[in-house]
Amino acid sequence: MVQLQLNLLEKLRQNNPIVLTIANTVTPAKVADAVSAIGASPIMSLAPQEATEMVTLADAITINLGTINAEQANEVTAVLRKNQAQQKPVVLDPVAIGASRYRLTFAKGLLQNYHFTVIRGNAGEIATLANADWNSQGIDAGSGQADIHEIARKVAKKYHCIVILTGQTDIMTNCEHDFTNQLSTPYFATNVGSGDMLSSIIAAFLAVSNDSYAAACTAIKIFTAAGVKATRESSGFGQWQIKLMDELTTISSADIPSIM
Amino acid sequence: MVQLQLNLLEKLRQNNPIVLTIANTVTPAKVADAVSAIGASPIMSLAPQEATEMVTLADAITINLGTINAEQANEVTAVLRKNQAQQKPVVLDPVAIGASRYRLTFAKGLLQNYHFTVIRGNAGEIATLANADWNSQGIDAGSGQADIHEIARKVAKKYHCIVILTGQTDIMTNCEHDFTNQLSTPYFATNVGSGDMLSSIIAAFLAVSNDSYAAACTAIKIFTAAGVKATRESSGFGQWQIKLMDELTTISSADIPSIM
Amino acid sequence: MVQLQLNLLEKLRQNNPIVLTIANTVTPAKVADAVSAIGASPIMSLAPQEATEMVTLADAITINLGTINAEQANEVTAVLRKNQAQQKPVVLDPVAIGASRYRLTFAKGLLQNYHFTVIRGNAGEIATLANADWNSQGIDAGSGQADIHEIARKVAKKYHCIVILTGQTDIMTNCEHDFTNQLSTPYFATNVGSGDMLSSIIAAFLAVSNDSYAAACTAIKIFTAAGVKATRESSGFGQWQIKLMDELTTISSADIPSIM
Repeated sequence: MVQLQLNLLEKLRQNNPIVLTIANTVTPAKVADAVSAIGASPIMSLAPQEATEMVTLADAITINLGTINAEQANEVTAVLRKNQAQQKPVVLDPVAIGASRYRLTFAKGLLQNYHFTVIRGNAGEIATLANADWNSQGIDAGSGQADIHEIARKVAKKYHCIVILTGQTDIMTNCEHDFTNQLSTPYFATNVGSGDMLSSIIAAFLAVSNDSYAAACTAIKIFTAAGVKATRESSGFGQWQIKLMDELTTISSADIPSIM
Repeated sequence: MVQLQLNLLEKLRQNNPIVLTIANTVTPAKVADAVSAIGASPIMSLAPQEATEMVTLADAITINLGTINAEQANEVTAVLRKNQAQQKPVVLDPVAIGASRYRLTFAKGLLQNYHFTVIRGNAGEIATLANADWNSQGIDAGSGQADIHEIARKVAKKYHCIVILTGQTDIMTNCEHDFTNQLSTPYFATNVGSGDMLSSIIAAFLAVSNDSYAAACTAIKIFTAAGVKATRESSGFGQWQIKLMDELTTISSADIPSIM
Repeated sequence: MVQLQLNLLEKLRQNNPIVLTIANTVTPAKVADAVSAIGASPIMSLAPQEATEMVTLADAITINLGTINAEQANEVTAVLRKNQAQQKPVVLDPVAIGASRYRLTFAKGLLQNYHFTVIRGNAGEIATLANADWNSQGIDAGSGQADIHEIARKVAKKYHCIVILTGQTDIMTNCEHDFTNQLSTPYFATNVGSGDMLSSIIAAFLAVSNDSYAAACTAIKIFTAAGVKATRESSGFGQWQIKLMDELTTISSADIPSIM
């Protein structure tokens, strides 16, 4: 069993860690606002020349492959190489990794050469990393027959990291322990960038704890609780996007038990 | 006369087609959310290396020239070349095409070498393609003396495609038939990206019908109906943006007659 | 003392100036919507090939360094070089300039070679340009001991321009006169892109006045008044983002005195 550390939320707001996101170009504003709203400080960069200083500046890093191309690949590599000496926590978000060999080859290369604290993806993305049979649907999870607990554990074991497979049920594993989270709302799937936001929020929590697994599980519990609370207060998808931002700024650790 | 196929909306939600948008970097989140909200599945890419697989994956494609540069031009060309064998429906959105020779030359080259199912633009953009006298205002339509029905028909005839000229009145033509749509709200013009959203939503409708003209006309009717409904329920521009997202997820074909 | 020219707001809405923003890739949609909402016409470009025509088209220009890289640096330089002959007003937004030598070196090179009408940044960014001792926090202002009035004046004197240092108190100086603005809300800091939006809105006001200092001070007063008014009408951060857009479209010069 993992012991959630819900008061990491208040610690995060006090410490205001800097989260460097090598972001896709679709949802960077949502990611930056979510990181800012929860109480951390977002920074992004497109220049490989900045990699060294950005890593030094950052308290945690998220690598998002959503619109990876040759130029950004250079920066991702520069950031990860620099981080080998600094060992800041790193989250990998392998967006739509099954959509092209280019994306998959690049991601697998990263996973072989660098250590990630956390990989966060949907079932389709984690299944792709596990070489499991699965029909991904572009950026969406799609559907398949593989046991999602099993594929998460397989990827965690293969890459010696925490794997977070998000969906209607979120599954977290560090190989030794599993944690599932049932807090969910269909709006997470409709909202493009929910996963991107979560990946960078996980990084923010990793920055304020030495127990990465507890921090990652806590981040998910708090983010999904905010999403569920937002759903209760909103009458449609657009409204929910707004309420989610409201909730991320105001939710406290004391709110969580009543939502769970 | 075109016969609208309003129940394509429900078919779209059932089939959940994948819409590949080669997007501008200004409004990709709005486009992705709109495509997701209406019930399709958005994907974007910045890497020419992914073009082949992205086209194969996609059920329809939108090419948006809003922030075209040399690197993205490579990807656009790769996508369209690959699509010559696959013949997925393609929408061209020639954003601010009158603003530079670079943009115009690139767009005309595309139109000469590849077939587009639909061109969607404002009066300034369609007038530029028709070599008509017009004062465009950057990304905005501007004003001019040309007959907008005539210039739409001229471009449709020249490029053997459906032309959709959007504005206070939307004009659709496939040369044989014209269709006009009066559903409108000034917020469409204030909201940067309304046209971008519509172009990718049109692609989603093209993906679920063999009658491209009926599908395109239906897409416009539904999108503008959602915009009009959102206006009735909102007290300002920001509110409207939110309500539009609400409406895109909840509007049904049965709602349309009462809005028209 | 500067005499605010509040009725520039109505002039702006009448003239509908085109504001070219060489934008970062994080917040371009927010910037474009803000420029559109206040009554100007936004345009953006990523292609150096368009620089000449974009400058000719534009009534004012904003250069935002938030995600500067080698390719965008080419375009920024092309735009500024072209503008030497045209002398359109230019705002520089040196986002997170203290975060890397790459960013700082590029910005200082620009400041040595080209004249900017306005530099707008937070305390950390202006302190970096003044070589003052300061702990910047990524894109956030951070904290330091330097006198913020003094560093603003130092930068204004060094680069012969108007300097706008925004924060809880906004400080504007053209060396001869200082102006301070107390209208503020904590949501400006939470919202990623508030500064980006303001920089491009300042450009819009510069486009409709020959008195740059009065226009810049007026722009800040109106933007912050909209932010304060939005705060009074909203119950959370997300709501505030929406209300800010509502206010930007509806606020009038007559509203300002009651907010100040």
